[in-house]
Amino acid sequence: MAFNPDLAERWAKEGNRDVLLVRPETKPDDVHGMLAAKGILTSSGGRTSHAALVARQFGKPAVVGASELSIDLGARVMTVGSLEISEGEWISVDGTTGEVFSGQLETVVPDMEDEWLSRLMVWADEFRRLGVRANADYPEDAERARKYGAQGIGLCRTEHMFFEAERLPIVQRMITTRSPAERREAVDALLPFQRADFAGLFRAMDGLPVIIRLIDPPLHEFLPSFEDLTRQLADLQIRITNARTLEEVEGITVKLLETQAMLDRVASLREANPMLGLRGVRLGILIPELTRMQVRAVFEAACEVTREGRKAIPEIMIPLTSHVNELRRQRAVLEAEAQEVMEEQGVEIGYQFGTMIEVPRAALTADQIAEYAEFLSFGTNDLTQTTFAMSRDDAESGFLVRYLGDGILPANPFATLDEDGVGKIMRMAVTEARKTRADIETGVCGEHGGDRLGLDYVSCSPYRVPIARLSAAQSALRARV
Amino acid sequence: MAFNPDLAERWAKEGNRDVLLVRPETKPDDVHGMLAAKGILTSSGGRTSHAALVARQFGKPAVVGASELSIDLGARVMTVGSLEISEGEWISVDGTTGEVFSGQLETVVPDMEDEWLSRLMVWADEFRRLGVRANADYPEDAERARKYGAQGIGLCRTEHMFFEAERLPIVQRMITTRSPAERREAVDALLPFQRADFAGLFRAMDGLPVIIRLIDPPLHEFLPSFEDLTRQLADLQIRITNARTLEEVEGITVKLLETQAMLDRVASLREANPMLGLRGVRLGILIPELTRMQVRAVFEAACEVTREGRKAIPEIMIPLTSHVNELRRQRAVLEAEAQEVMEEQGVEIGYQFGTMIEVPRAALTADQIAEYAEFLSFGTNDLTQTTFAMSRDDAESGFLVRYLGDGILPANPFATLDEDGVGKIMRMAVTEARKTRADIETGVCGEHGGDRLGLDYVSCSPYRVPIARLSAAQSALRARV
Repeated sequence: MAFNPDLAERWAKEGNRDVLLVRPETKPDDVHGMLAAKGILTSSGGRTSHAALVARQFGKPAVVGASELSIDLGARVMTVGSLEISEGEWISVDGTTGEVFSGQLETVVPDMEDEWLSRLMVWADEFRRLGVRANADYPEDAERARKYGAQGIGLCRTEHMFFEAERLPIVQRMITTRSPAERREAVDALLPFQRADFAGLFRAMDGLPVIIRLIDPPLHEFLPSFEDLTRQLADLQIRITNARTLEEVEGITVKLLETQAMLDRVASLREANPMLGLRGVRLGILIPELTRMQVRAVFEAACEVTREGRKAIPEIMIPLTSHVNELRRQRAVLEAEAQEVMEEQGVEIGYQFGTMIEVPRAALTADQIAEYAEFLSFGTNDLTQTTFAMSRDDAESGFLVRYLGDGILPANPFATLDEDGVGKIMRMAVTEARKTRADIETGVCGEHGGDRLGLDYVSCSPYRVPIARLSAAQSALRARV
Repeated sequence: MAFNPDLAERWAKEGNRDVLLVRPETKPDDVHGMLAAKGILTSSGGRTSHAALVARQFGKPAVVGASELSIDLGARVMTVGSLEISEGEWISVDGTTGEVFSGQLETVVPDMEDEWLSRLMVWADEFRRLGVRANADYPEDAERARKYGAQGIGLCRTEHMFFEAERLPIVQRMITTRSPAERREAVDALLPFQRADFAGLFRAMDGLPVIIRLIDPPLHEFLPSFEDLTRQLADLQIRITNARTLEEVEGITVKLLETQAMLDRVASLREANPMLGLRGVRLGILIPELTRMQVRAVFEAACEVTREGRKAIPEIMIPLTSHVNELRRQRAVLEAEAQEVMEEQGVEIGYQFGTMIEVPRAALTADQIAEYAEFLSFGTNDLTQTTFAMSRDDAESGFLVRYLGDGILPANPFATLDEDGVGKIMRMAVTEARKTRADIETGVCGEHGGDRLGLDYVSCSPYRVPIARLSAAQSALRARV
């Protein structure tokens, strides 16, 4: 057990040891240590704390908010009651029960190929009505998802691919340039990366559907932050007044101008409320070449994989739709580009077109939306944010804590679906959409009550797929009683 | 006619002349000139441009986006076709038709006491079913509203009172202090100001209801901006490296520490999406002394006015409600404080308790909300923002322009109610609320289709009250045909 993320990483990598990372709480700076560790233990924070979220995302067992632990990072020792445990000693955690054990417990790595587990999962699959898909942005996630029994990819977030080291500069150039030619060049430069990603996903999911969501987040997320740039600029201004040689002044001036130019661009993209701003389908409408590039990458990848003898089933999903006209417009762009690629490649690909339902207006007008959407996928995170008018980032580190403590809200609506509000509008949307398109496919990202809402599938982290299969069976069996 | 806001102000004030302000477009820096002018003319911008919004708010005739005008600010001359008009020459505008006339037209100030106009308004009032109230934050607005025939105040925004020069430092102290005693002191210091404001409103509206909305905006709106403080800090850091005397260094250091402290506080209040953050009822729940102070001010003012022989009818309104428990909690605080004041003063005041419906979840759960709310007032601005997941500030200066130009949205939903989405959820809310409380009072802030939605009243700017009375009559007569 290590108290320090660097140490945890070193022990895990160099010493090839099993490490548990123990911290009072975790921060983004600790993630490398969390990834290296086999498990995580914190003395503060709840189920939506950084530690809990990261652990869930990466399938690490974790116990968070063990408040009886007193951790002395300086002395590298933790105490609980009269028991003292020093860095390097063994402890064990059970992420399901929240128990922490002194010493090394015997553990079993779940083996999905285990005969008895397989038999249990087969029984579960026999009884469940609800489909189970996985969220996966990378081929290796998709492979794991398939191994764990996912029946497709329910959400591939294409923007995650944009953040990788070799691509980010291209993405930044695409965003910051004012020259249409340079923008097109940058967009084109992204195409091979996206095509390779999608091909990997299609290969892994051979014969199963893959929902690919077009780019969603506000563009400023790909750029340095306004605050950092402002600080850098101030530093440079101070350095220039202290510079002693002409050469030094010139060097700083170049940096200063570059920083100022980036700051101007970042400032021009700043929004009062980015969550409600230029993102999702709005990006696709303002920068149609981005939609075209992503669609081209999807279909070129699908053709490539088809030629290898595999079956690619792309389902293209539009994020943040609020009005049916957005969908109609994007569908036209998509169909033209898809047709063009299929003709170029001489391959026919069956595909579907659909949208996220994550904005109240889309749910309210789901009958209109369903004229253009062949599938709907509920995004309960954004739908909860907009239905409550509550920014998750702001609320969970602020007033929501008080709301939960005082019992004003019975549960965190970002962890447990709010049945009376968000659930109600979701049920309305399903009813309305089926009026227009009886066989419309419906799903939800997250493990939030897909069954109770009468949806066709849920989509969760690959690691949660077996749990989701079991719990769907339990729910189906309960419904029989 | 003046091209410069300073000149417009000088001519209006010193020369006591009627001035029309002409600009390519207006910005917040121009407001003093717009207020001094009798009318406004711009060559660009639409109905939601800064010029249009300010003109509507202050009852100034305006023509915006007269794109055939070419304005040369340097030469102080504007041309349309072959006609040249120089600064200082006469022009006239008709804000209703959008016409601009060369030369001075004869104009008439509408006289609400004019016999014929009065008779028309009496006819209108005979036929209309819809009530008409006014938005008014100050006694003089309330007086004007009453003169124009408003049947009450539909919205008094109490935070506007916090921005006045003598109060803002107290408000800032209330927000920035970390000492509960100092916070209470600041809150108490605001009480007499608020009481005097409310007493003025009750006097003006003697016998008519006054809806008072408790504090709504995020607290950071009362503080200097993060960007300004960051810039100031950088300037101070540069100045300190250039300081020549110890005295100078000391002076700058004091300022630096003050600025840093304010920046820290502003940073701690910063939110990713302030529109969806700590504001409205969330403030009242986190800082109950603020609710208590506002309620005390309302009831002390009502008692004072009652003793003068007038009738005060306060209706207290909670903003940004999303869950019935927020309302239940605030109602308990309100009733206790109101009771205390009435006992202290020995005066009994009849009052109502209600809420804004401006969050989708409140509309979806209006049946629950109506258990605690005696009236509902729809805030279509925020409800449109959350239903569309569209931040008005960001959208109107950004993608919404493109959406309207391309016909993706048929109209700006902030100017014309979106019937299919926002209108639908409003109708649902009225139906649900009446199931619980059949006689619940319903209204809408803004002139947005109160009739079509079956509401009891609309509330608009005092200047628009006569128009609203007429249009309510027209709508009632059309319904008869």
